[in-house]
Amino acid sequence: MPYELWYWPGTPGRGEFVRLSLEAGGIDYIDQSFEQPDALMTDIKTRVPEPFAPPYLVADDLVIAQVANILLYLGDEHGLAPKDKAGRYFAHQVELTITDMTAEAHDTHHPVELMSYYEDQKPEAKRRAADFRDNRISKFMGWFERALERSSGDWMTGGKWCYADLSLFQLVDGIRYAFPKRMKALEGDWPKLIALYDRVAKLPELQDYLGSDRRQPYGDGIFRHYPELDAA
Amino acid sequence: MPYELWYWPGTPGRGEFVRLSLEAGGIDYIDQSFEQPDALMTDIKTRVPEPFAPPYLVADDLVIAQVANILLYLGDEHGLAPKDKAGRYFAHQVELTITDMTAEAHDTHHPVELMSYYEDQKPEAKRRAADFRDNRISKFMGWFERALERSSGDWMTGGKWCYADLSLFQLVDGIRYAFPKRMKALEGDWPKLIALYDRVAKLPELQDYLGSDRRQPYGDGIFRHYPELDAA
Repeated sequence: MPYELWYWPGTPGRGEFVRLSLEAGGIDYIDQSFEQPDALMTDIKTRVPEPFAPPYLVADDLVIAQVANILLYLGDEHGLAPKDKAGRYFAHQVELTITDMTAEAHDTHHPVELMSYYEDQKPEAKRRAADFRDNRISKFMGWFERALERSSGDWMTGGKWCYADLSLFQLVDGIRYAFPKRMKALEGDWPKLIALYDRVAKLPELQDYLGSDRRQPYGDGIFRHYPELDAA
Repeated sequence: MPYELWYWPGTPGRGEFVRLSLEAGGIDYIDQSFEQPDALMTDIKTRVPEPFAPPYLVADDLVIAQVANILLYLGDEHGLAPKDKAGRYFAHQVELTITDMTAEAHDTHHPVELMSYYEDQKPEAKRRAADFRDNRISKFMGWFERALERSSGDWMTGGKWCYADLSLFQLVDGIRYAFPKRMKALEGDWPKLIALYDRVAKLPELQDYLGSDRRQPYGDGIFRHYPELDAA
């Protein structure tokens, strides 16, 4: 049976980290955000255990939620991460750091009320976005760069891509969309990270997907572009 | 060789989630926040790969960072989680949800500038804390309660505690410290979760630790009590 991926329709969001690994791994799956775009909130209530939030992956009797957990599972089952301990846990460590930065990117437009509109928290968003631009982007991206410098190959865990490399591509892509001016000013500091981004963009395994309609444009999701939150 | 746990001295913080599993598992380790309290920032730079942030665990040649990743490792190596797929990934899913709630609890006192003082962001903290009290505490704790209702035993993954149960104890403990009035008003909604808290507090494996000086008082860490941020 193919996997089922359940996520909000209409935005790449957190689901995109999972899609990239499914696609690059050549893994058979049904993307329910396209197949049953109105069924998510009904479906989630029927699952045991019920996920806290989308995305979740259904694998026969298994229901797995939390992006990093789904990728850990896909890594184990489909060889999308090294099998040795050092590589396996380091791939997951990188993924969890990507998760942290993604949450912080989200909080730049929702710093004080998670369920309200951005428009209801613009002054606070301005302050949080300035902190993110001035302190956090370099701290995270600089760490990824140093990790790549210490890798034995071109990828995070050596000579072959793992799921965390694909997620890193998506993270850079999302932060570029949200903060284009700031990223342009900083990217020269991370040559290995940007080279990794370019290599993922050209992976033969991903060409069909990245050129298709299934690779959705950004919008009102986690990565948002508000010009007033960006600056060089 | 015993493990080395490296974390900031003087506060339970995120390190406490790791300590509880090491202690309850009867695992030999050196807590460097007591043994070498001034050495953390020097040590972290010598590690390959260098962790993004403490806590990190040193296991001979392995260096593992990110709380959930450390617990995944300890779970695998020391039987602190089920071995079957469903239980293993669900324990990790619960742990990652605890990680999310912990980060949100932190952001109630640091909503807009992560490296500045609380005193520099009090109005924003007031708004974020109100949102956390009114919407987020119930959303998270209610989910843990429902997960326990669906468990085949008293614990998250059945009849035996796993690392996520210990972390859940620490989460409830920390949120109680930070938001005592709000927790008192809500706790009646989560009978299974509170019963789990009480069972962990009485685990024979943890009595020595919980009664010792190594179980540190809260302070200026992740879980902070500011009376102006709490309300019933």
